Amino acid sequence: MTSSPTSPRPTIAEIARELGVSVPTVSKVLNGRTDISPATRSRVEEALERHRYRRRRAAAPPAGTGLVDLVFHRLGSTWSMEIIRGVERAAAARRTSVILSELSGEHRPPHTWLETTLARPPVGVLLVASHLTLAQHRQLTSRSIPCVVIDTDGEPPADVPTVGSDNWNGGLAATRHLLELGHRRIAAISGPADMLCSRARVDGYRSALDEAGVTFDPDLVRSGNFYVEAGYAEGIDLLSRPDRPTGIFAGSDMQALGLLRAARELGLRVPDDLSIVGYDDLPIARWTGPSLTTVRQPLTEMAATATRMLLELADGEDVPVQRVNLATELVVRESSAPPPLP
Amino acid sequence: MTSSPTSPRPTIAEIARELGVSVPTVSKVLNGRTDISPATRSRVEEALERHRYRRRRAAAPPAGTGLVDLVFHRLGSTWSMEIIRGVERAAAARRTSVILSELSGEHRPPHTWLETTLARPPVGVLLVASHLTLAQHRQLTSRSIPCVVIDTDGEPPADVPTVGSDNWNGGLAATRHLLELGHRRIAAISGPADMLCSRARVDGYRSALDEAGVTFDPDLVRSGNFYVEAGYAEGIDLLSRPDRPTGIFAGSDMQALGLLRAARELGLRVPDDLSIVGYDDLPIARWTGPSLTTVRQPLTEMAATATRMLLELADGEDVPVQRVNLATELVVRESSAPPPLP
Repeated sequence: MTSSPTSPRPTIAEIARELGVSVPTVSKVLNGRTDISPATRSRVEEALERHRYRRRRAAAPPAGTGLVDLVFHRLGSTWSMEIIRGVERAAAARRTSVILSELSGEHRPPHTWLETTLARPPVGVLLVASHLTLAQHRQLTSRSIPCVVIDTDGEPPADVPTVGSDNWNGGLAATRHLLELGHRRIAAISGPADMLCSRARVDGYRSALDEAGVTFDPDLVRSGNFYVEAGYAEGIDLLSRPDRPTGIFAGSDMQALGLLRAARELGLRVPDDLSIVGYDDLPIARWTGPSLTTVRQPLTEMAATATRMLLELADGEDVPVQRVNLATELVVRESSAPPPLP
Repeated sequence: MTSSPTSPRPTIAEIARELGVSVPTVSKVLNGRTDISPATRSRVEEALERHRYRRRRAAAPPAGTGLVDLVFHRLGSTWSMEIIRGVERAAAARRTSVILSELSGEHRPPHTWLETTLARPPVGVLLVASHLTLAQHRQLTSRSIPCVVIDTDGEPPADVPTVGSDNWNGGLAATRHLLELGHRRIAAISGPADMLCSRARVDGYRSALDEAGVTFDPDLVRSGNFYVEAGYAEGIDLLSRPDRPTGIFAGSDMQALGLLRAARELGLRVPDDLSIVGYDDLPIARWTGPSLTTVRQPLTEMAATATRMLLELADGEDVPVQRVNLATELVVRESSAPPPLP
């Protein structure tokens, strides 16, 4: 049996016959069940993919019963809250409800997540800074469940839309701001080095230094995670150096909060001795002491845009643009000022 | 037709006959549909209640498809995040998923929320610091959908379990701490005056003053909401008085953050000129400048406890204790110290 894009797609029964397995076995794979051997699952998955099997889209769920799965790698700080708020509101406007899950919560290993999701099933899946394996993507695709990624941490398959923000421009604007104030020793703390958004921001930082004729010093670039502890730890390290930076571009407002703490413990005043630029513009950024100069990411709008795209895909509509990056914006508050006199 | 607790409960058909309406009409009311007249709905609801009609519990949903509705009045700060995290983890451990909604989100008025919920339906409903009308409670009860309230903002019906924390002891411990440091002018900012938790905390504050022989001054007690703006506004007002307090017990860590800002703007140093005690012990409390002395509420544990109670009720088990208040604990950090010398 062969299949090409133009030949009719085979039924489950035909696929089962080809592989010499039972129809319920193919069905179990389609339903994400775990009670079949990995070897058989893998053979069936391969055949489904090769034949481009697509389960017919289920009829639209009755009004008010449609579900969207919102999947976090880890439920974190207010950053997650802003995303949740954006998704909830965009979904509510379409009378769709939001199911929340942690992909790697200790109680819900990834394979259980998929099985649970497929048993439900939702009209679509929103992934937040997390990714599925290619096999998991295939399982969603073969069931006509669309997927959209918010703030990607990698490069999802080309047919999976992503919504993020313009990280490169964010890094550029933050660093230009510090340069314009007169800073020359400027450090950058970013997120994990393997996340595209981190790399884009550091590249923006580097471009700003280049255009100002400031030599890039790799010792001043740190990568950690986006949590407050990373900002504190890198801050203590950077600020204890004899040639400490006078300005730091942080990867998140939470990191900036950790930096404020590190500066305080080392007896450095912000912004007199040290300027800090955060990232995100979480609600808390205006309430820290001093309030944070930061790069605003429109988090709730990113989340709402991704939700609307997902619901359009679920309705069988085309989504013309697969990569959406919303604009970032520098917000100047109290944590940045000219550097101290030498 | 009459019905007593011991007589057999009537069927939908019998109720329809009694009222002279069709069976589908009674059915629509049970399903929370909105396409029937308010007058008819009200007559049907009344009859269902009078006969103590209970829809037979649906068979347990297949593994992994059970849903719990987590309902916020308004999705707020990291406080909401802590609750969400506790619910998500306890639900995941039981292979139950969590649907998140805002009760008074602008896009989802309360009656739509109920209709959407009943169309789903979940195995149970968790209400966070929000309440349903009695009619809404009846609709859930008549469909055998249990409900548990986390951190109640009022007094729910006696058969609705609540999980909170020991607010009175929290207020007592915070105020005793300030008194032991030597403070005598101590203000309290609480949440809305109509929320039980606010009243319990202020009563604890007052008891601590009483036992120390400090006269209660009603001018020093403020109520607002739990958000940062309220702490800032009340802080500016309290601290601009000629006889300003030297210690303030805040209703939340977010309020305390607003207070820190107010003190900063007025040139007052914390803790040298002013001591502040927060409430909640959100993750951010250890990162503010200075870090916050605060009353720890075990928010994720409260949420997890409520979730486990709800799932037990959904399984038809008895929940012996209907009012659970977990212990609070004073955590001393940098924001409290002896008052300045007069």
